[in-house]
Amino acid sequence: MKLLILGGGQLARMLALAAAPLGIECRIVDAQVDGQAEGCAAQVAPFYQRDWLAPGALDDLLAWADVVTYESESIPVPLLESIASQVHLYPPVRAQQLCGDRLIEKQTLSGLGIPVAPHRAVSSFAELEQAVSELGLPAILKWRTQGYDGKGQWRLDANSDLAAIWRAAEARPSILEAMVPFSREVSLLAARSPTGELVCYPLTENEHRQGILHSSRSLVDDPLQAQAEEYARSLLAALEYVGVLAIEFFVQDGRLIANEVAPRVHNSGHWTLEGAQTSQFANHLRAVMGLPLGDTSLIAATAMLNLIGKLPQLPPLLALPDLHLHLYGKAEKPGRKLGHLTLRCASPEALQQQWQQLQGVTASAG
Amino acid sequence: MKLLILGGGQLARMLALAAAPLGIECRIVDAQVDGQAEGCAAQVAPFYQRDWLAPGALDDLLAWADVVTYESESIPVPLLESIASQVHLYPPVRAQQLCGDRLIEKQTLSGLGIPVAPHRAVSSFAELEQAVSELGLPAILKWRTQGYDGKGQWRLDANSDLAAIWRAAEARPSILEAMVPFSREVSLLAARSPTGELVCYPLTENEHRQGILHSSRSLVDDPLQAQAEEYARSLLAALEYVGVLAIEFFVQDGRLIANEVAPRVHNSGHWTLEGAQTSQFANHLRAVMGLPLGDTSLIAATAMLNLIGKLPQLPPLLALPDLHLHLYGKAEKPGRKLGHLTLRCASPEALQQQWQQLQGVTASAG
Repeated sequence: MKLLILGGGQLARMLALAAAPLGIECRIVDAQVDGQAEGCAAQVAPFYQRDWLAPGALDDLLAWADVVTYESESIPVPLLESIASQVHLYPPVRAQQLCGDRLIEKQTLSGLGIPVAPHRAVSSFAELEQAVSELGLPAILKWRTQGYDGKGQWRLDANSDLAAIWRAAEARPSILEAMVPFSREVSLLAARSPTGELVCYPLTENEHRQGILHSSRSLVDDPLQAQAEEYARSLLAALEYVGVLAIEFFVQDGRLIANEVAPRVHNSGHWTLEGAQTSQFANHLRAVMGLPLGDTSLIAATAMLNLIGKLPQLPPLLALPDLHLHLYGKAEKPGRKLGHLTLRCASPEALQQQWQQLQGVTASAG
Repeated sequence: MKLLILGGGQLARMLALAAAPLGIECRIVDAQVDGQAEGCAAQVAPFYQRDWLAPGALDDLLAWADVVTYESESIPVPLLESIASQVHLYPPVRAQQLCGDRLIEKQTLSGLGIPVAPHRAVSSFAELEQAVSELGLPAILKWRTQGYDGKGQWRLDANSDLAAIWRAAEARPSILEAMVPFSREVSLLAARSPTGELVCYPLTENEHRQGILHSSRSLVDDPLQAQAEEYARSLLAALEYVGVLAIEFFVQDGRLIANEVAPRVHNSGHWTLEGAQTSQFANHLRAVMGLPLGDTSLIAATAMLNLIGKLPQLPPLLALPDLHLHLYGKAEKPGRKLGHLTLRCASPEALQQQWQQLQGVTASAG
């Protein structure tokens, strides 16, 4: 079994690490960018940098691969379409088309009866003013495409200078979204195989800071689990999806409101490496290779903390019981995801206690 | 942190897979042998083949590495000595010297008060006849060096043609060992760091078939645990050992009799990948890199089955709940270790039941 992964970041790296035990041989290819360092996935699998929009640039790799997958929403759709015409490509391009544009994403979700926040398309300053008057403030302006980890997003409130923000957003096609006064943020990870087999992980509760995921913890028998799974089942079927997909939800008055869909393995599912019987990475691989999906049930109470910008000292971290470290092999840089930790504990109480201890150790970093 | 691994088989492969999440960059080097295929570790880390006994053949790699480790007892001691004079090499050469020769190994163990089977050194046919007369039959003739997985071993009984066996053994320096009428075989995995910190895993019960490990299962609170740990503590301290080491024991009349020492991660510890809080691979890496050792306690009842010679069909295997697959990326060949499976179950009863189911699925192979 031979798998080509497009994109060479930490998701590709963790996919490749999960592929080896399944006997799946991986190669990884990323776009050639002048002066760009090798992706961190290059440390764990044969890595190629190619000017991949050039005709025929991937021919040898596509001829080698049984299946192609990708780790990022930023891969150009025409490239994916061209690949899909030559070899099995999962997740399907359709998912990328529907999730890569926030407006189409929201329309798709709404069309399936999955609640989303009130929103308006904005492609001019006049439309922005109109949207503000209709939705009220505070609200969030988001680029339709290419924003992630808080980039391409601007919070608007009564004191905002709309014109300045519209300039900062480079007048790009965007949406204005009403702020949802949520009580908590959760996400559902689901995997679907080509035969339609579908498995869902226990809901994850997430905390974002400055628009970047800070931490996640696995939930046990959350009252919203069944509703979230119903939404996932409906979305993945509509997309004829193959692979792992994440839906991020706000919880408002006990109801799920879909915020974002990520058609790939997702940061909020990293806890599954230790916390679930089968990790999201292994299940993505099983799905795209047409293998039976693995058990998604929880092993024990698990929480994940992202390591962002600067790494803490390792020895005190590794001395903590129940701690599992996942570094991505990247150089420190403000705002960059350098790794994550998971704590898997025998009980929720032990997890709570270890989490407190962990705060003490990681507080020393950046 | 940069680690060079000598030897490119499955142990190096699993070490490299465990190294990435710890932020340890690995390179792997193996001896250059004409026509030999690349080691299976080459799929997961930068891989070099070198005529490593040639002067200076490893200079660039040794200059790169912070620490060097090795996956096999067959690496020539003079090469290890030369490396140790240039860079941190763990486990120490002394361990390799003491464990690489079955006679010295037994003398070392005896010297520490660790029981071993009655045995005699045999370096001529006359000595073989003398040893047989002293120890009686059945007995086992074993090469002092280089035997593994049942190779270099001959069982002698009353019907054996001693002269023919001595010819088959190429008259190599050997030992004759009395057969121990054991009730079971167990092994202890221990890890020791440069500071002397030592951790032991729960005892593992092993079953060998045709001299090759067939399966292992983790034991819970075995009555021999404390005794085994005492022996391990004494041996690892005497060797000033750094890394993971395995001691295989026979159990005879409720007593431990040391059979073999493997100064490395060991097949009977593969279950720790899923069954222990920290795997033997992660703890070997923590030890050789001077990091705090990880918790060795059991997560749940776990058993391991080796996949030897021929692989079973994967889809029915992966459809079994609680099953974790570890393939080594090697071509099928009679007697070759191609991978292993673990079953980690909520209870010993569930494990027993799943194990039966597994027999049905794997019986179709080989």
